[in-house]
Amino acid sequence: MKRIPLRPENLHQATLLRLLRDGGRSRAELGDDVELSRSKLNLELDRLIEVGLVEQAGLAASRGGRRSGMVRLSPAIRFAGIDIGATSIDVAVTNGELEILGHVSEQCDVRQGPARVLDRAMELLRKLREQRLFTQLNGAGIGVPGPVSFAEGVPVAPPIMPGWDRFPVRDMVSQELGCPSKVDNDVNLMALGELHAGLARQVDDFLLIKFGTGVGCGIVVDGKIYRGVSGSAGDIGHMRVDDQGPVCTCGNTGCLEAYFSGAALAREAVRVAPRSPYLTERLDVVGSLTAEDVAAAATLGDPVALQLIRDGGRQAGQVLAGLVSFFNPGLMIIAGGVARLGHVLLAEIRSVIYRRSLPLATGNLPIVLSELGDTAGVIGGARLISDHVFSVQ
Amino acid sequence: MKRIPLRPENLHQATLLRLLRDGGRSRAELGDDVELSRSKLNLELDRLIEVGLVEQAGLAASRGGRRSGMVRLSPAIRFAGIDIGATSIDVAVTNGELEILGHVSEQCDVRQGPARVLDRAMELLRKLREQRLFTQLNGAGIGVPGPVSFAEGVPVAPPIMPGWDRFPVRDMVSQELGCPSKVDNDVNLMALGELHAGLARQVDDFLLIKFGTGVGCGIVVDGKIYRGVSGSAGDIGHMRVDDQGPVCTCGNTGCLEAYFSGAALAREAVRVAPRSPYLTERLDVVGSLTAEDVAAAATLGDPVALQLIRDGGRQAGQVLAGLVSFFNPGLMIIAGGVARLGHVLLAEIRSVIYRRSLPLATGNLPIVLSELGDTAGVIGGARLISDHVFSVQ
Repeated sequence: MKRIPLRPENLHQATLLRLLRDGGRSRAELGDDVELSRSKLNLELDRLIEVGLVEQAGLAASRGGRRSGMVRLSPAIRFAGIDIGATSIDVAVTNGELEILGHVSEQCDVRQGPARVLDRAMELLRKLREQRLFTQLNGAGIGVPGPVSFAEGVPVAPPIMPGWDRFPVRDMVSQELGCPSKVDNDVNLMALGELHAGLARQVDDFLLIKFGTGVGCGIVVDGKIYRGVSGSAGDIGHMRVDDQGPVCTCGNTGCLEAYFSGAALAREAVRVAPRSPYLTERLDVVGSLTAEDVAAAATLGDPVALQLIRDGGRQAGQVLAGLVSFFNPGLMIIAGGVARLGHVLLAEIRSVIYRRSLPLATGNLPIVLSELGDTAGVIGGARLISDHVFSVQ
Repeated sequence: MKRIPLRPENLHQATLLRLLRDGGRSRAELGDDVELSRSKLNLELDRLIEVGLVEQAGLAASRGGRRSGMVRLSPAIRFAGIDIGATSIDVAVTNGELEILGHVSEQCDVRQGPARVLDRAMELLRKLREQRLFTQLNGAGIGVPGPVSFAEGVPVAPPIMPGWDRFPVRDMVSQELGCPSKVDNDVNLMALGELHAGLARQVDDFLLIKFGTGVGCGIVVDGKIYRGVSGSAGDIGHMRVDDQGPVCTCGNTGCLEAYFSGAALAREAVRVAPRSPYLTERLDVVGSLTAEDVAAAATLGDPVALQLIRDGGRQAGQVLAGLVSFFNPGLMIIAGGVARLGHVLLAEIRSVIYRRSLPLATGNLPIVLSELGDTAGVIGGARLISDHVFSVQ
């Protein structure tokens, strides 16, 4: 497969490429979605076909008159999504429609620093290349677990990523892969994944809350990620639940993350273990406890574990209720490892939000668990870079 | 003066009209701001001059070559800004550049219902017409103290506006004045006023916090008001400070508004009056106390009043600190009647935000008092409707 240069020549071509990324369709359907005369539309499409970005795909079902020709993106287009978490790397390769063709992951501590971690990511990509999923990429989108200066493509003062501050992640990856790349915060990538392939497909304004080792929020306004002026928007882990709570890693007391996160749950599990036979045994055997242990105990009906989840969900709900009043989103998605605590957690969060937020803001507000799991970040990475390459640069 | 039909024929004309609204400039300067060839630019400008929307205004200072012709909006253009508050109405008439030509206001209780209150607003406008400030308006922007369905132009379930729920404010005003009109929440209008003529002129993403009888927030994303999916975004008055606080009018406890607002300050002032000679005397004479009394006492150095302001500012700061972490704004403006408590309040709010929000979010964050005072809302109203009429409809 040869790499196709992805350069729309004008705004119309860019719009057409994005529409086709979001699903193949007929020329007539494309005509409904863009404000172009039929002759101008066909001119632009023919040009995209000529350069190899788009191809014909038979005839559409009749809409009453002559059957319209189907068009789709070239099946040779390839994007990579690279999702670097605090303790793991996920790498996937997609086609132009951002469908995952291959997905590999491994445990990896982000504190090993950029050289080592990015090397691992490149190695995972090589595995996918060896599976003949691609020869050359058209672009790569990378997520990292910290604030990012999107314009410069560098992490900025990321608290849990020693050695990464202002490291040129974007430029290094671009150079290594010989294709355009973009870097963003990992939670923003998850939100983009939900926007493309998850529960947020029809929603313009929504929040994605990630409960992992830490807590973060992806903010989507009018179908686009809102990053704030320094790229730290959505960094809700240190929002205050109250003043009396546990001391947080940030030095303040009563932060959301200190009350409810993977780290907080692991700490609390040890504290309450003496009252739970399951957690006691697990602690004896392994020597420590994790959020997964709490989830496992809860699944077995352990009342102590269920209580931990309820308490945490209630504290988290207090903060999320405020965000609902402030932002009035059309959807709130709960995601991340801790979200696997499931419906007990969801019920507690919903209960607090429906009680504490304004009725007008919650009237039509679905609060749901993500259905994408580990793929949200990598799909979001592919979406991020496709937005870039399918634009006039 | 004859009413000019304000209908840009295309996107380019709309862009030129908005640029000229934000300040007269030369043809050469306009050429720098829009992506149009010089001949196409002059064609569109000449067309706008022909229909009477724009006029020539002499020659600009030389930029090295031939001197460019200045252009400006027709001086006959007139917008109205109508700012309906909980207890007052402000009405102003502006020119096309949204400069206030006349501004009148009166006390008026919004609970009198839409027929009575809108009648008062029309009466105030008649006063301005009698001053020969206009004969016919090109548009009116109206603010009301509650949530609004912007698309429908009606208040939606506004808690302090009995009788206004889904009342067709926009259509009534349009019909009455014979011009296009738009309705929005009053705090959103203030934010638009700051964007046009206040401290937010160069800022794309900012928050305006209004402390009046209640508390609200205007959210500006990318230079546009963010309203949320049901028009209630920024309704922060019932965000939780803690669970122990005073009971709020909404039925919950510990809401921001129950801790710090005009109403809360008045209530607290009565409670602490026995410890303050100034407040005691005032209470004896008038029979009740207001936020203004607290401000007056503080200005005289009354330690009890100062303590009230500090305590309130600290509680408010807790909520605002969370918003700064979440939204990562480029500017936060404190406005509204209670903001007149001034620098003691500002210092307390700043202190909490700088301590509790993420350093990355506060690094370059100015937190300032509004300098527009009562004019923010009416300028915002003119801005709102000008955005509408200077667009392709």
